[in-house]
Amino acid sequence: VGGVLALLNGVPSDAIGMTDRGLMYGDGLFATMVLSEGRVLNLGLHLDKLAAGALRLSIPWPGHEVFMADIDQLASGSSHAGKTVLKLMLTRGSGGRGYAPPVDACVTRIVLQYPFPLYPEYFQSRGVRLRLCSMRLGRNPLLAGIKHLNRLEQVLARMEWSAPDIQEGLLCDTEGLVIEGTMSNVFIVSPAGVLQTPLLSQCGVSGVQRTCVMQLAAGCAGLAVQESQLSVDDVMAASEVFLTNSVIGLWPVRQFEDRHWSAPGMVTQRLLNLLQTAERDT
Amino acid sequence: VGGVLALLNGVPSDAIGMTDRGLMYGDGLFATMVLSEGRVLNLGLHLDKLAAGALRLSIPWPGHEVFMADIDQLASGSSHAGKTVLKLMLTRGSGGRGYAPPVDACVTRIVLQYPFPLYPEYFQSRGVRLRLCSMRLGRNPLLAGIKHLNRLEQVLARMEWSAPDIQEGLLCDTEGLVIEGTMSNVFIVSPAGVLQTPLLSQCGVSGVQRTCVMQLAAGCAGLAVQESQLSVDDVMAASEVFLTNSVIGLWPVRQFEDRHWSAPGMVTQRLLNLLQTAERDT
Repeated sequence: VGGVLALLNGVPSDAIGMTDRGLMYGDGLFATMVLSEGRVLNLGLHLDKLAAGALRLSIPWPGHEVFMADIDQLASGSSHAGKTVLKLMLTRGSGGRGYAPPVDACVTRIVLQYPFPLYPEYFQSRGVRLRLCSMRLGRNPLLAGIKHLNRLEQVLARMEWSAPDIQEGLLCDTEGLVIEGTMSNVFIVSPAGVLQTPLLSQCGVSGVQRTCVMQLAAGCAGLAVQESQLSVDDVMAASEVFLTNSVIGLWPVRQFEDRHWSAPGMVTQRLLNLLQTAERDT
Repeated sequence: VGGVLALLNGVPSDAIGMTDRGLMYGDGLFATMVLSEGRVLNLGLHLDKLAAGALRLSIPWPGHEVFMADIDQLASGSSHAGKTVLKLMLTRGSGGRGYAPPVDACVTRIVLQYPFPLYPEYFQSRGVRLRLCSMRLGRNPLLAGIKHLNRLEQVLARMEWSAPDIQEGLLCDTEGLVIEGTMSNVFIVSPAGVLQTPLLSQCGVSGVQRTCVMQLAAGCAGLAVQESQLSVDDVMAASEVFLTNSVIGLWPVRQFEDRHWSAPGMVTQRLLNLLQTAERDT
């Protein structure tokens, strides 16, 4: 698959059955993580979140150890030096033509290994540029928070711009509340100094890196994070803004539409330092 | 694929590349139609709708004649007697790990042939039982109306019941407006005798059979169909209710929750007759 290594239910493969419900309906989940020198960063958290998502969709969970064996197999046979990206997928398996899951379905397990993306260092040291997407996310509390395979909204949002100097788009929901970036979670520091991130009860993906930053902020920096209903005006008025996901880590925002910040701000820099220490020590 | 015949980009196959964006993100569309004695019912309408959906998602359309050649190939090599079901899929093709479509992507074209489902004759002659689903559809006008591959909402809604005497579930959106069934469109005849079907500007799938019924009603029966904002109370108060899709055709509703009708009602029966004539004559 063009430089991508892949396992299907533990067996090297580059194809999946055409009647898999992952393709038919997006009936499944995924997780994206970093493999660094033979070790997956935050593997336990990633698997816990994937398992929780599977439970929400009533997709049988094959067990943490099954995915861990897949990852070991892929990592040991890999010729990649340094960091790579792993994508884990779990679908409800193959089935008939209707939406009702077949009673005898066996889940499909996929692990893909990708080269690490080449982001310039200054995205982290000087910040990125963010734009406001016009597409609004639909609300569905049953799907909110989990990383399911229905990602057309993210695809359409990402297609809104092609300018290479814009790194991410900010998404609001149908009520106009700020939710996330197309591929990242968003945090702000309010004018009063409060660290806030959108509440993801109606839509959005709750990423592992979002959880890590919330835990580090509360535990090490003494900064409790508020999960809040945030507006675009709140982002504009913020004293700092940053984005997180497991691959990018943390990107300070230096520009959002016509609002500029000197990035990274003090709180953002403190969290960047804590993340680097945490990654080195665990 | 267990009794299913399949073509991938015109070539017999039962598998698809693991990095196809159809699987990764549900980044594609589908259409379901009936092949009856070598002829696809409403093929032109189905391909027109699929092409319109592709345009909406900015997925290049391979051309009606390309899909028609696939169908001819599958139909001529088929040992199925009588009716079968065809499912056409179009995805944005294989690509990298991010949401942004690769510039060099080639679309993936899939045609699957399934046995015709065995529905009892009395579903049509005496009507079906409908329940109200608790899951609410998220609203997104960019995705409304088209049959894209993001169908987790339908899967979750269909999982709400397993009672075999309930044939379909009615779905409302987050505003509480009635939209559709999990696999069908819905029509009502109001107490004043007006034929109505939900407006699908915010969510829902506008099926080919919905269009056919609207055209037949207006053209042959002199019954203009109103596309309206309908509530559950409107359905309860209706004098007739029926469901449509390309495979079931038209099912009168004899029960919705604790509301009963003697089905089919007069308008429903007239449309059933018109559909049968249209299917025979075209």
